[in-house]
Amino acid sequence: MPNTTSQFAQRISRLGSSPIREILHVLERPGMISFAGGLPAVECFPTLDLERIPPSALQYGPSEGDTPLRERIAADMNERELAVEPDQVFILNGSQQGIDLVAKLFIEPDVCVAVEAPTYLAALQVFRLFGAKFFSFSPQDLASLRGHKNPPRMLYVNPTFQNPTGYCYTAKQRLALARLCEDEGIVVFEDDPYRDLAYETCARRPVVSHLERGNWVYQSSFSKTFAPGLRLGYLVCAKPLIKYFARLKQAADLHSNRLSQHLVYEHFYGRDPGARLNRITDEYRRKRELFDAYLHKHLGDCATWSLPKGGLFFWLHLHASEPMDTRLLLDMALEKSVAFMPGEAFFADSTVARNQIRLNFSLADSQQMDQGLKVLRVCLDAFGRKVRCSA
Amino acid sequence: MPNTTSQFAQRISRLGSSPIREILHVLERPGMISFAGGLPAVECFPTLDLERIPPSALQYGPSEGDTPLRERIAADMNERELAVEPDQVFILNGSQQGIDLVAKLFIEPDVCVAVEAPTYLAALQVFRLFGAKFFSFSPQDLASLRGHKNPPRMLYVNPTFQNPTGYCYTAKQRLALARLCEDEGIVVFEDDPYRDLAYETCARRPVVSHLERGNWVYQSSFSKTFAPGLRLGYLVCAKPLIKYFARLKQAADLHSNRLSQHLVYEHFYGRDPGARLNRITDEYRRKRELFDAYLHKHLGDCATWSLPKGGLFFWLHLHASEPMDTRLLLDMALEKSVAFMPGEAFFADSTVARNQIRLNFSLADSQQMDQGLKVLRVCLDAFGRKVRCSA
Repeated sequence: MPNTTSQFAQRISRLGSSPIREILHVLERPGMISFAGGLPAVECFPTLDLERIPPSALQYGPSEGDTPLRERIAADMNERELAVEPDQVFILNGSQQGIDLVAKLFIEPDVCVAVEAPTYLAALQVFRLFGAKFFSFSPQDLASLRGHKNPPRMLYVNPTFQNPTGYCYTAKQRLALARLCEDEGIVVFEDDPYRDLAYETCARRPVVSHLERGNWVYQSSFSKTFAPGLRLGYLVCAKPLIKYFARLKQAADLHSNRLSQHLVYEHFYGRDPGARLNRITDEYRRKRELFDAYLHKHLGDCATWSLPKGGLFFWLHLHASEPMDTRLLLDMALEKSVAFMPGEAFFADSTVARNQIRLNFSLADSQQMDQGLKVLRVCLDAFGRKVRCSA
Repeated sequence: MPNTTSQFAQRISRLGSSPIREILHVLERPGMISFAGGLPAVECFPTLDLERIPPSALQYGPSEGDTPLRERIAADMNERELAVEPDQVFILNGSQQGIDLVAKLFIEPDVCVAVEAPTYLAALQVFRLFGAKFFSFSPQDLASLRGHKNPPRMLYVNPTFQNPTGYCYTAKQRLALARLCEDEGIVVFEDDPYRDLAYETCARRPVVSHLERGNWVYQSSFSKTFAPGLRLGYLVCAKPLIKYFARLKQAADLHSNRLSQHLVYEHFYGRDPGARLNRITDEYRRKRELFDAYLHKHLGDCATWSLPKGGLFFWLHLHASEPMDTRLLLDMALEKSVAFMPGEAFFADSTVARNQIRLNFSLADSQQMDQGLKVLRVCLDAFGRKVRCSA
């Protein structure tokens, strides 16, 4: 009789958990203040008029997604200067699914994937499961990607209000990255879920819109601008990839939720999405200012950060006299009912202490921000001499 | 510059399309009569009272699924004599997703999977993508699974109203299969989506409930008894597998649709599910009789079949003087606006002509059944001398 794990596929030895998903469990505790997840504010959720659900929304549907929604998204892409046709659009069960499908298409053991340092942690989780090795780059040093004897097969990038840093690539960086990937023959996988949460003007044209050849995938989500519980995102791909994504989506789950597709089509696109986005960004801009003020109040002398131009996160560099593993800080904070995301998990090499943390500002209300950051300061003070606050 | 496919993972060379998903596209043509998919009748869909959607149904949620629904499903399992706790239950984005997750856990190149001949075609698609080799067995000859030098790592079985044959394992066969897999150390993956569509009394106790050791996964779906467009299914697993499925589900899509989970909890479980199932099975039993009568009328002298005791399909053996590839028959039928599923796709070796076809009886109305089967007879008559009808 074999033991449990001897029957597993080899990839399971590389299957890590998603730290953010693990923390979500803790958040169910009463009284918890969370700066951990990228959870939208409940007051930004749509009011759904669910009276006229067509029977088709309850029936099986096409694997690629419902045609009217695909057409609407293609029109959106064209407005973003990404020229695509509706058959290049696939409706996903949330954009995390796009990462799974892309990994199935391109990643196998020892394939090198270029990722930002830091990058979205759940993308690392999936690429690692499929066997990827990582090459880390930063938008400030794109040239590091050039001239490798074995260039990375794929590059994963989050150019607009990056998760976790909030960084937004300049127009020049976007163009440079596209040219570079073309020259080196690197597949571009652009993940753009925060694009519409812009609080200041900045370049947002998709990197892949600059490509004239090569394989590429662009994806985004309705989780941040509509409702994450409806699990709806989309993927747009280069034409030669259409056939493969159609099959991968079939195999993964037949097709995406049709009630969600109906609701997004009718309620998100059908009712002045511009006005809706303005309401949401006004609210999140207000919360961003508020959070920034509380950061200055409680952590101003212990950390540095930039005001994010968009997205849902502040990325803090903690002042430390020596490398500090912020996962230990999280343990202390959780005991005092405050959650945040340790920075270590966002790096391909998560074993290195980073002194960096990610704080979400969209979910907590003003009082929770004040209280939660105050607690975080108490934890930092208690952490010991590694932390250097002026106080 | 690499060409498109040189950047793909090796598994993509094994990525076939799902014939049934491809045919679904054709079904959108006006006037098409479909016996192809396993589509529930629209008149069996629930009327949803969507007035009180809680905000939590729109927010991010746990990867494993919402606790109340998991508890309710665990209670259901215990009623089916499968003793489990709620933490063994995972809510899926439809049970096709369970096949993907199980394949990720157990399948890698050259792993042998035992499947019935015929079996569910989209399971073959997924297992093949992950590199499986197949060993085919039949419920009438379970002993063929014994005593292999390299026994299959996993067995996939659809014991209750099997797709495509409609076959239901006897109580004795269920017990024998469980003992055999225990003895040989084979992981049991039991897929049970049709269980509740029972038109006659027969053994339905899960095979895995007889296991006393070893790895196992059991799954089912709300697609057939509630609404497929809501994409909701569930997976139940042996305790040592919980941790792995939690991570695989995180990586695949963070979590399943929460509005669907809410609707299934409130509308399926909350309102006398027994009465609801009785209404549906009464309607499908009626349609089964009707379809059987039209089969006798139009194809009685060209084919043999058994009346299925449950599920959504008739499985026909066409009388043929030599092996006949029913995909060619489908081409003829589609030209005359009738769709069905060729039998070849349900076998691990789909290159062999089988003279067998699958006909769904839940979607078409009486007039469509009559007309569609009449057209099928015309196609058979036109197919040539391979077909032997008495007429």
